[in-house]
Amino acid sequence: MREIREVIEGRAARLSEGDVRGFLAYSAPEILLYSLAPPLGERVDSSDPTPTEQWLATFEAPPRREVTRLEIAADGDVAFATSIDSMSATPKGTTDAFTLWYRVTLGLRRVDGRWLVVHEHESVPFQMDGSFAAAIDLKP
Amino acid sequence: MREIREVIEGRAARLSEGDVRGFLAYSAPEILLYSLAPPLGERVDSSDPTPTEQWLATFEAPPRREVTRLEIAADGDVAFATSIDSMSATPKGTTDAFTLWYRVTLGLRRVDGRWLVVHEHESVPFQMDGSFAAAIDLKP
Repeated sequence: MREIREVIEGRAARLSEGDVRGFLAYSAPEILLYSLAPPLGERVDSSDPTPTEQWLATFEAPPRREVTRLEIAADGDVAFATSIDSMSATPKGTTDAFTLWYRVTLGLRRVDGRWLVVHEHESVPFQMDGSFAAAIDLKP
Repeated sequence: MREIREVIEGRAARLSEGDVRGFLAYSAPEILLYSLAPPLGERVDSSDPTPTEQWLATFEAPPRREVTRLEIAADGDVAFATSIDSMSATPKGTTDAFTLWYRVTLGLRRVDGRWLVVHEHESVPFQMDGSFAAAIDLKP
């Protein structure tokens, strides 16, 4: 459990530091990503830092990440973890700092003694009032 | 793996049949739900069929559920599963049938030899074009 917690908190810290390769080093070579943005799902090559670097470049500075309410279930070499996370950032060229709270479920596998993220599901719910607006203003 | 697949396909089938108690019987007494609708997360009492029954009553008939691209990782008594699912239904009092495709990650534990859902994360992504619209029109 402690090792898995260190993986989850470590990757959030690396991203906050803008250390893309350090962030990706916590992932298996390929992960199944259900991201905040479309598509529904995609397999991502963790050896390629370019997409993450390009995403980071859309902000004035790397987003500050916070992981809260972390819960981990693990047995043998398989684990999943749930948390309510936040990301605080300022889009490039603006002064519009935002904080987005979202849910995260991670799937992990222990490979050669090391826990790696093999699946990441990040999302916000959406309003069922007919607007179909993403609920980007929720707080835990 | 076969048992876990039967849990996942079984609960989808029970919901399609409108069998709420049968659907909930695949869940642990309490599950951590990250639902399509707000809030971000909540602990749900699986012994109470009322919320699910009330939700089903908002449709002309129970939603038809489909589970696709199911992948399962399991070791010992812990597992997680990913899939791209659809729900087809007609809101009560309308003829506006819809099909919604969404991502599902489940966390499961084996308790007394039976696999039970302890965590469910269902979501659609949202558009990053400034509209913050939930992407309810995606197809796998």
